[in-house]
Amino acid sequence: MSSDRVRVSYELLLELSREMLAKIGAGPRQAQVVADVMVWSDLIGRSTHGVSRLDIHAKRIDEGVLDPSAEPRIVKSNHGVMLVDGNEGFGHYTADFAMGSAIELAREQGVAAVAVRNSNFLGALAYYLNKAAESGMIGMAFTNSVPNVAAYGGKQAIFGTNPIGFSAPRQNNKHIMLDMATSSWSASAVRAALDQGKALPSGVAVDEDGEEITEPRPVGNFTLLPLGGAKGYGLSLFVEILSAVITGSGVSKGVASLFNDMTRSGDNGHLMIAINLSNIIAIEDYYPRIESLIKTIKSSNPDKEILYPGEKRWLTMEENLSAGIPLSRKTTNSLEQLSRRLNLTPPWPTPSSA
Amino acid sequence: MSSDRVRVSYELLLELSREMLAKIGAGPRQAQVVADVMVWSDLIGRSTHGVSRLDIHAKRIDEGVLDPSAEPRIVKSNHGVMLVDGNEGFGHYTADFAMGSAIELAREQGVAAVAVRNSNFLGALAYYLNKAAESGMIGMAFTNSVPNVAAYGGKQAIFGTNPIGFSAPRQNNKHIMLDMATSSWSASAVRAALDQGKALPSGVAVDEDGEEITEPRPVGNFTLLPLGGAKGYGLSLFVEILSAVITGSGVSKGVASLFNDMTRSGDNGHLMIAINLSNIIAIEDYYPRIESLIKTIKSSNPDKEILYPGEKRWLTMEENLSAGIPLSRKTTNSLEQLSRRLNLTPPWPTPSSA
Repeated sequence: MSSDRVRVSYELLLELSREMLAKIGAGPRQAQVVADVMVWSDLIGRSTHGVSRLDIHAKRIDEGVLDPSAEPRIVKSNHGVMLVDGNEGFGHYTADFAMGSAIELAREQGVAAVAVRNSNFLGALAYYLNKAAESGMIGMAFTNSVPNVAAYGGKQAIFGTNPIGFSAPRQNNKHIMLDMATSSWSASAVRAALDQGKALPSGVAVDEDGEEITEPRPVGNFTLLPLGGAKGYGLSLFVEILSAVITGSGVSKGVASLFNDMTRSGDNGHLMIAINLSNIIAIEDYYPRIESLIKTIKSSNPDKEILYPGEKRWLTMEENLSAGIPLSRKTTNSLEQLSRRLNLTPPWPTPSSA
Repeated sequence: MSSDRVRVSYELLLELSREMLAKIGAGPRQAQVVADVMVWSDLIGRSTHGVSRLDIHAKRIDEGVLDPSAEPRIVKSNHGVMLVDGNEGFGHYTADFAMGSAIELAREQGVAAVAVRNSNFLGALAYYLNKAAESGMIGMAFTNSVPNVAAYGGKQAIFGTNPIGFSAPRQNNKHIMLDMATSSWSASAVRAALDQGKALPSGVAVDEDGEEITEPRPVGNFTLLPLGGAKGYGLSLFVEILSAVITGSGVSKGVASLFNDMTRSGDNGHLMIAINLSNIIAIEDYYPRIESLIKTIKSSNPDKEILYPGEKRWLTMEENLSAGIPLSRKTTNSLEQLSRRLNLTPPWPTPSSA
């Protein structure tokens, strides 16, 4: 671990995040859920979706384009389907409500789909997918995001990195979770490459003339390519349809940039699906079947350990629970600045506490 | 069009296929549905999943590993979820029953998931996805297939090309349909490259030592790579979970090869999901929204026409409806041979009719 990072305990980081969120206007429920989503993301090693995002959310609240105490509203609900309006509140809180509702409905109906409009950036899909798995369900999640990605053969960015995700439970609670951008790379991966001065491989991004770039640039100054050409384009389009076209949310450029557009709410849309496994297979029959498949994967190369999707997250979680969550200097700087403004004290040595 | 092909009218090819299926043991319903799936695949230009597969199905029936008159059995059904046993019958017939049931259930429940075990090769997912779209629904479909694909970092083939598919309706009935292998290429694309003597690009396949190959070989003699590395691996794994682990069907090597294993039924599994759009959005609000997104896609490159997923299929269908369905010499040969055996006359000039 590089020396310009500190490690902070999960509990202390959660407490600081909750306090920060409460001080910038979140209600107690919102503060609790949003902090939980963000710090869990840091815990599993998705720092690009963790507490490093607290300051931009504080800014959006200041600018009046994010309502920190908004409660989602159920627009309609009928058997296994529900439509939810996020009321311009935290995407994390709204998405958590949506997946929670899908799980509840699926307990009665076997399967449920909860569509969300008028929401905001929701962080990492993995958090909500994990909730479905924790409830003994298959989770599926889709969200659109601000356009950074071209169609296959296109020049302009018309899709977000539009992640798609699936989850399946394991008995040991180290669930299988796939949470993937349908673009070549996620915007946050490019942002991290920019921070670390790393070059982009071929096939990731193009400039305004459609020429490939390898030098990372600030997001918005280039266009990402879809994953694997036509297939990633197709997946990205369906994420846009499922999360925005059918929900009534912002489509394509109808979604505002979290970082660069302080004039309007994100208007992101989501779709959360839960399938109750016990309606299909007895859970005691399911567990050995999923473990057997994992064994098949693990033994498919005698020379190399092959991880299942999510496995690295659980390994990172164990490490971070015992050693503390690593925060980059950039993140601690932004949290220290926000702490000063909100009259809070970060739980690590700071210049002002020295 | 190359001179070694004939074009046959849709109606005549459908009739021949139905007659062939009836003569090899299919019941009237099975013959009608299976012929419809196969000839529709040819009609939209997916000839790898069309009537060229009639002979291998005839062979499997002869060998007693495909029951041509089997009816699917509903194992359980509860609100929006159903589990179906294919009873070793035609995958096409079973999958059609499953998507039909999902559509019916979704009309009442808003969303439905129908899981299928003990089925066989189902042809192209696009056929069933199109049915959902025709009913004003979002369709999702997943099926596993015989292992030809390695995990990311793996050496042995443990997954099928495991396609995933989505559909969304358009008012003009030229629905949006994504039907994609989660591998670099589909097995049928490699088979076509082999037939046409075309080289494989890099990143498609490896030999038994994990070394890349560019010379196409018969399927089974190489291992395909997952689409885009880790992401395609993740998608492929979830197709395996959704279609086989949770349905009780054959997992990984539990699936028999359509072409190369005449000792047992395929034991493929599927999952079909339908979401009734009108439970989420009024259909008159939905249509302009989907058309607007298509316009956004089409105008994202002034120098190039960008197609939506499925669009090429509808263009091919129009051409083939007017000019006839093109059949390769290899396909007409196999149909002529089967016709002689079944005492049928193909609707094109043949050596025996000359």
